[in-house]
Amino acid sequence: MSNSINGEITRRGFLAKAGVGLVAANASGTLLGRSFAQLIVPEPPGKKLGWAVVGLGSLAINQILPAFDKCEQSRVVAFVSGHPDKANKLAARYGVNPKNIYNYENYDSIRDNPEVDIIYIVLPNSMHAEYTIRGLQAGKHVLSEKPMANTPADCQAMIDAGRKANRKLMVAYRCRYEPFNQEMIRMARSQELGQLKAFLGDTGFKIGDPTQWRLKKAMAGGGSMMDIGIYSLQAARYISGEEPIEINAMSYSTPGDVRFKEVEETITFQLRFPSGVLANCTSSYGYSGQARFRAVTTDGWFELEPSMWYTGNRMRVNRGNSLAEITIQPKDHFASEMDHMSQCVMNDKEPLTPGEEGLRDLKLITAIYEAARSGRTVKV
Amino acid sequence: MSNSINGEITRRGFLAKAGVGLVAANASGTLLGRSFAQLIVPEPPGKKLGWAVVGLGSLAINQILPAFDKCEQSRVVAFVSGHPDKANKLAARYGVNPKNIYNYENYDSIRDNPEVDIIYIVLPNSMHAEYTIRGLQAGKHVLSEKPMANTPADCQAMIDAGRKANRKLMVAYRCRYEPFNQEMIRMARSQELGQLKAFLGDTGFKIGDPTQWRLKKAMAGGGSMMDIGIYSLQAARYISGEEPIEINAMSYSTPGDVRFKEVEETITFQLRFPSGVLANCTSSYGYSGQARFRAVTTDGWFELEPSMWYTGNRMRVNRGNSLAEITIQPKDHFASEMDHMSQCVMNDKEPLTPGEEGLRDLKLITAIYEAARSGRTVKV
Repeated sequence: MSNSINGEITRRGFLAKAGVGLVAANASGTLLGRSFAQLIVPEPPGKKLGWAVVGLGSLAINQILPAFDKCEQSRVVAFVSGHPDKANKLAARYGVNPKNIYNYENYDSIRDNPEVDIIYIVLPNSMHAEYTIRGLQAGKHVLSEKPMANTPADCQAMIDAGRKANRKLMVAYRCRYEPFNQEMIRMARSQELGQLKAFLGDTGFKIGDPTQWRLKKAMAGGGSMMDIGIYSLQAARYISGEEPIEINAMSYSTPGDVRFKEVEETITFQLRFPSGVLANCTSSYGYSGQARFRAVTTDGWFELEPSMWYTGNRMRVNRGNSLAEITIQPKDHFASEMDHMSQCVMNDKEPLTPGEEGLRDLKLITAIYEAARSGRTVKV
Repeated sequence: MSNSINGEITRRGFLAKAGVGLVAANASGTLLGRSFAQLIVPEPPGKKLGWAVVGLGSLAINQILPAFDKCEQSRVVAFVSGHPDKANKLAARYGVNPKNIYNYENYDSIRDNPEVDIIYIVLPNSMHAEYTIRGLQAGKHVLSEKPMANTPADCQAMIDAGRKANRKLMVAYRCRYEPFNQEMIRMARSQELGQLKAFLGDTGFKIGDPTQWRLKKAMAGGGSMMDIGIYSLQAARYISGEEPIEINAMSYSTPGDVRFKEVEETITFQLRFPSGVLANCTSSYGYSGQARFRAVTTDGWFELEPSMWYTGNRMRVNRGNSLAEITIQPKDHFASEMDHMSQCVMNDKEPLTPGEEGLRDLKLITAIYEAARSGRTVKV
């Protein structure tokens, strides 16, 4: 995520006290047809699985490494980086044994390190597939950052590698593991404000450095849709609990803007779901920060704004004649998702957001780009 | 507008003190290329033109007739109604001379009544064209409720009749005459929050009585798009200050819902403007009340929510790191639009929202329906 987003975040310094089991219990019983209940298995207190973080960029340094302090089942034990100096400094800071620092050449030898249970891939999008597959082949479980890969074919190859290796594969859709988005899902399922009619999702930020990998088609796979629009796509799916059947889209890039020579700046997309719910979303690298998910129902609406920065989510509920902000105890998104993955490995359970979930999004993003390109409704 | 909207309105009982000239001065210099300045001509205090109200339904009774009390250049002097009892009661209440009560048969004889300068058409959509044209042919100036008519052809016939009769024709786009929407326009033009990137418009309400004319295709011309989606379409145009060049749309009506046998329940539509601004809008008869216009810029966003009920507009501005509600002195929308029309007649000026403006919207609504029907981007 860019510095311009980081600049807007108000760190609350809140340390979540409740474990993942409680997060699940706060949310509705099912998400996209998958039951939470099966995941709530108590673990012996103090047991933590060992994690290797692959890629020490700003997301790893500013968000993921600090989040291990808040984890109950996860601890960082290894790094994989092309920058030994940086890796050594971070190892000293986080108590990682220097022998557990790998580079991209000797990465595969991580198979011989029994301290490492799970690998977290925090590389540019185009590298997720290779490093996920090598990690799985090394006998480790893998959590990959989103988007899962640049193409559905790469996603499928990652899934296949996980099955072949009999290892877990999860996509880091952190919003699924934090209580504000979970409350949106619970309210939609409970229908306490009536039937869901529409989902409105607007996500965007003003991207800076024109040389960054997010603006290179080969590395990023696409523009704002791949990086930030995917949050609205995910939210439309997990809040409705349905899969879209038709897609419209329209995109725009400012002519002559060096940032958008290879990838799209802004894209709006619309999804039709089988129940009749319509989603209307925008995604942009040209906006000031936007992060809003609104669920419109027959009797009111409920929304998060912001909805998906690293911290600071807020929820409002309009019950027709009243508008109220809802107080929810925040949790660290990264700690929650990592502990979920550790729990799944400990208990041999399927993650809430497995590789198949990342594949679904990549297929839909491909269809969104096709709709924008062709000017036609794409049926999926 | 339906009772479900009326039920949500908090009447503030605020009486606007400033005249139309001040409204214009508060707004930006130009709107869609038309200068406000030419309209600011002082009038002798106390001079009021005489208005006839055609159609005494709930909008006339609950909003328009009470608004005359707040007018400085407009007074009600005549009624045209198919219900003489109702007309007589209202005449007594509003001091209308009983001789100035017309029915739909003797309506044309209003030409012989010098007390009537302007006719306000507050009939179902399908009747706007006929009663506007008859009014113009009777030598009166005409203000027609929105949508102007059910088809572009009817709009054109109304415009032609006005030209032939050398009388003013205005469409009752009340949001153009109230200060919250005018402040949205001013902020967009001033670019004080940077360049406009996107307009997000969501308007809807839960329509009640399934027998009402708004749900009959022949009378309403269409569903929520004609009645409430038109506000977002208008706002996208007046806030961007541009005309769209491409349109996408997707519609939905709940199967088996008796309200939506003839007209659409929900429609989402997207507009591409020449500058690259994208508008992403939803309109519904199935939502709880929604009325939000958000302008997203490179440096923040500003929005009205609500944006277009009869009263109660609120404005918020996000300057990147701060979110603030803006205090604006509200004005009665109907009094402002009627006084604008009176001023235009007094000073022989073109209204800010002439017939041509209604025609533009009807052409665009026709294209929106075509995009939804065909599943293709429609170029306009």
